[in-house]
Amino acid sequence: MKKGLAKKVLSVTALSCLFFGSSAGVNTNYISASEHEEKDVKNVIFMVGDGMGPSYTTAYRYLKDNSETIKMEDTAFDPYLVGMQSVYSADAYHDGGEEDEKENIPDSAATATSMSSGEKTYNGAIAVDLEKEKTKTVLEGAKEEGMATGLVATSQINHATPAAYGTHDEDRNNYNDIANDYYDDMIQGEHKVDVLLGGGTDFFDREDRDLTKEFQEDGYDYVTSTDELMNTSSDQILGLFAPVGLEKAIDRPEEQPSLEQMTETALETLSQDEDGFFLMVEGSQIDWAGHDNDVVSAMSEMEDFDKAFQKAIEFAKQDEETLVVTTADHSTGGFSIGEGGPYKWDAEVIQAAKHTPDYMARQIVEEGADVETVLNDNIDFELKDEEIQSVTDAMESAAEEEKMVEVDNAIEAIFNERSGTGWTTSGHTGGDVPVYAYGPGSDMFSGFIDNTDNAENIFKLLGLSKTEDGAPLPDTSTSTPAGMLAGVLIAAGGAALLIFRRKNAKN
Amino acid sequence: MKKGLAKKVLSVTALSCLFFGSSAGVNTNYISASEHEEKDVKNVIFMVGDGMGPSYTTAYRYLKDNSETIKMEDTAFDPYLVGMQSVYSADAYHDGGEEDEKENIPDSAATATSMSSGEKTYNGAIAVDLEKEKTKTVLEGAKEEGMATGLVATSQINHATPAAYGTHDEDRNNYNDIANDYYDDMIQGEHKVDVLLGGGTDFFDREDRDLTKEFQEDGYDYVTSTDELMNTSSDQILGLFAPVGLEKAIDRPEEQPSLEQMTETALETLSQDEDGFFLMVEGSQIDWAGHDNDVVSAMSEMEDFDKAFQKAIEFAKQDEETLVVTTADHSTGGFSIGEGGPYKWDAEVIQAAKHTPDYMARQIVEEGADVETVLNDNIDFELKDEEIQSVTDAMESAAEEEKMVEVDNAIEAIFNERSGTGWTTSGHTGGDVPVYAYGPGSDMFSGFIDNTDNAENIFKLLGLSKTEDGAPLPDTSTSTPAGMLAGVLIAAGGAALLIFRRKNAKN
Repeated sequence: MKKGLAKKVLSVTALSCLFFGSSAGVNTNYISASEHEEKDVKNVIFMVGDGMGPSYTTAYRYLKDNSETIKMEDTAFDPYLVGMQSVYSADAYHDGGEEDEKENIPDSAATATSMSSGEKTYNGAIAVDLEKEKTKTVLEGAKEEGMATGLVATSQINHATPAAYGTHDEDRNNYNDIANDYYDDMIQGEHKVDVLLGGGTDFFDREDRDLTKEFQEDGYDYVTSTDELMNTSSDQILGLFAPVGLEKAIDRPEEQPSLEQMTETALETLSQDEDGFFLMVEGSQIDWAGHDNDVVSAMSEMEDFDKAFQKAIEFAKQDEETLVVTTADHSTGGFSIGEGGPYKWDAEVIQAAKHTPDYMARQIVEEGADVETVLNDNIDFELKDEEIQSVTDAMESAAEEEKMVEVDNAIEAIFNERSGTGWTTSGHTGGDVPVYAYGPGSDMFSGFIDNTDNAENIFKLLGLSKTEDGAPLPDTSTSTPAGMLAGVLIAAGGAALLIFRRKNAKN
Repeated sequence: MKKGLAKKVLSVTALSCLFFGSSAGVNTNYISASEHEEKDVKNVIFMVGDGMGPSYTTAYRYLKDNSETIKMEDTAFDPYLVGMQSVYSADAYHDGGEEDEKENIPDSAATATSMSSGEKTYNGAIAVDLEKEKTKTVLEGAKEEGMATGLVATSQINHATPAAYGTHDEDRNNYNDIANDYYDDMIQGEHKVDVLLGGGTDFFDREDRDLTKEFQEDGYDYVTSTDELMNTSSDQILGLFAPVGLEKAIDRPEEQPSLEQMTETALETLSQDEDGFFLMVEGSQIDWAGHDNDVVSAMSEMEDFDKAFQKAIEFAKQDEETLVVTTADHSTGGFSIGEGGPYKWDAEVIQAAKHTPDYMARQIVEEGADVETVLNDNIDFELKDEEIQSVTDAMESAAEEEKMVEVDNAIEAIFNERSGTGWTTSGHTGGDVPVYAYGPGSDMFSGFIDNTDNAENIFKLLGLSKTEDGAPLPDTSTSTPAGMLAGVLIAAGGAALLIFRRKNAKN
């Protein structure tokens, strides 16, 4: 990381406010909210609840509700809601060959590319456009300007969402290539991502290549447990806590950190950089739970994400120069609060689970444990005979290779039916998702936006170049003579502002 | 309607801004957005897309998309999105007797009561609270202050949503009592609602009582066709265009007006009142389509609502003193964009329908028309043999009294399956819904709100009393000595402001 004087070019609008604001008259309403906020963003924490559509955020409110009061209490997210975003991909405009599906509901690779780079692209694309050309990401822009960068996820860290911030690939499934990219693909001779935390030893420590060693040789601290994570003091960290994804929060062993712990370490590390930082944090497995139509896991992962969100907000409130944006990339599973007619969604059923259905299914199928014992040990309500029987039947009648799936499905069905949870698909759905924002620049994310606006806004707010060659942003107005005068003032004023910032930096 | 000097008491905060704003320093940011906007609201148009959760508004964007561009075009609603609201009811806190379900997913009566009165209540409650006591509605508050009032719906006008603005009943199913209430339950010797437009002759023109005559005797113009509606010049109108609900927009005969036409007439009529107006407009049958799991009807009703919304925005833009708030009361059917796995939602399938499945089923079951002919005449894609057969099978195998439902379901299934539309329930779901707002005061609806906030905000913005006895709003600050001084200034200033308004009124 560069610790010297930042080369950041502040945006013209921001500095126009600074120098010309007072001459525009006393009515400060002439300066729009977005312009007004553009000058104060030092750090950006971008948080993605993968699959976290509006049913998930509402269901989580039902889950956390104190039933002794009529009013349903706000979740940690609610006070920060600023709008919604569209999530569609451009897959239908991509020539993917004869068998290409021309999809218009997005996958997480396309949406992550839109949020990281401001480009619509095809499903499966990792920061490449419809022509498979690399798209510059906000993380890359931040690193070019000497900022610290981090990616945190509960999936393998080379999974679609983090990958589309720090790497490029025409196919999200090229997991080894993507892991390699984190090491090989440098910016100005430095690795792009200073803090990489998640799962993925299977992809980083392979027979053909050990990236964990390579990163360590370049000065990264390599940590593989919660203890090691919480005790590192390096300014560059590779933390891999599971072969692929971490366990679901409700099942997670102590050795695997919570998303909150990973976020906390990332923030402590990255905030040492006086040039500011860009950090992407993903609650990856809300989506996995949705694909599985598993409401217990979905709420478990919402809680993990919630606590990380609170940690980010807490940091931003103290720091005052940090923008936190939190959203989903799409919704998953067609999750509905209510199913089959009744006007009742019973969160207590979900709270009664001590572990996920996957965990219980593993106990039964892999460990050979007794069905009734496993269910009774892990579920805090009295099971009906037919519920126990449905799991026993799945265990006994399913083909060997289907037993895990069928037993898991049977246990999930108990929770879905009792709670009144509906699902329509094992895939994604196309509906708009909520957007939450806090801190300087947050107004730019309010109202209805498209997922590409996230990248566009962050490029602007951090004063980053969106083009490969570092050219200025196309929407500045320095081409006119008046603009040239502004440019001179900016050159002087930018330096003054940066000095002011350094003196007042809290981190 | 009172045409004389309004007795409206403007809110203290609004006038505090007017008189003390300039002494608070040049930084106008000290005045919060909500306070800042509180002084300019003369009229309120509150629009409810019944059942219109986020899947509906997004699906409508897919439907209207120009597929020649990669970017999905904004709908008319999108630019006005300001946030989302929670919709849960307090049914679980209501002692409804032994068989009471203790629901926590709301019905349209509970949500309408929350939006009209600011109270959480039980499902089925029409502007009564958990103890079945009447709750004062914003429409009643507006009428008390001499404002003009209107209710417009595509359901019968005594259906839950409009009913909870203009009447009170412990049970939404007391349709005749509710219709009677519109006539009998007066404010200061006048009928509460000046313009009532929708369906419902079955309930207004009955054997035991003819409310249409009674209203006419009191000076209302009674209209029953589009022509009559568009040519009335009365300042009080009862318009009933169907026995119960109107036909779905895509099926609607010319004699039945569009929601846009009803909205237009209501606005022309109500805006004659110099005291301002409160108008509630409901796209009632988005919800009915959802209950029926009928995506063709859902999109038909979205389009009807969209055009009425555009009319309201157009009015508000010209008028400049009108607040438009548009939202849903809840979502219906567990509608998802995507079903069963594929990442594709095909809007062209829906666009191919010339009529609703209900219409086609009526042709087949009631008129005895040939299945294949009806389907081919009304659907603009080539039907597969098995699709035609599925409808034929439903017609032939269903019991006589089930034929309509089964044939309808078979036709709906063709559209659901081809388009990739998922459903989870014939009832409502509990997820948050989008909120759109435009005009003075719109900032008060931004971010995350509860459905009760709609009423609270409108009471405040219109300076209306929320209590039965007309006492001032509890959140004013006139109890301190400084407040008393403000009170004196308000008395003088209020008159001045009202005179200014009258002179500048555009309607």
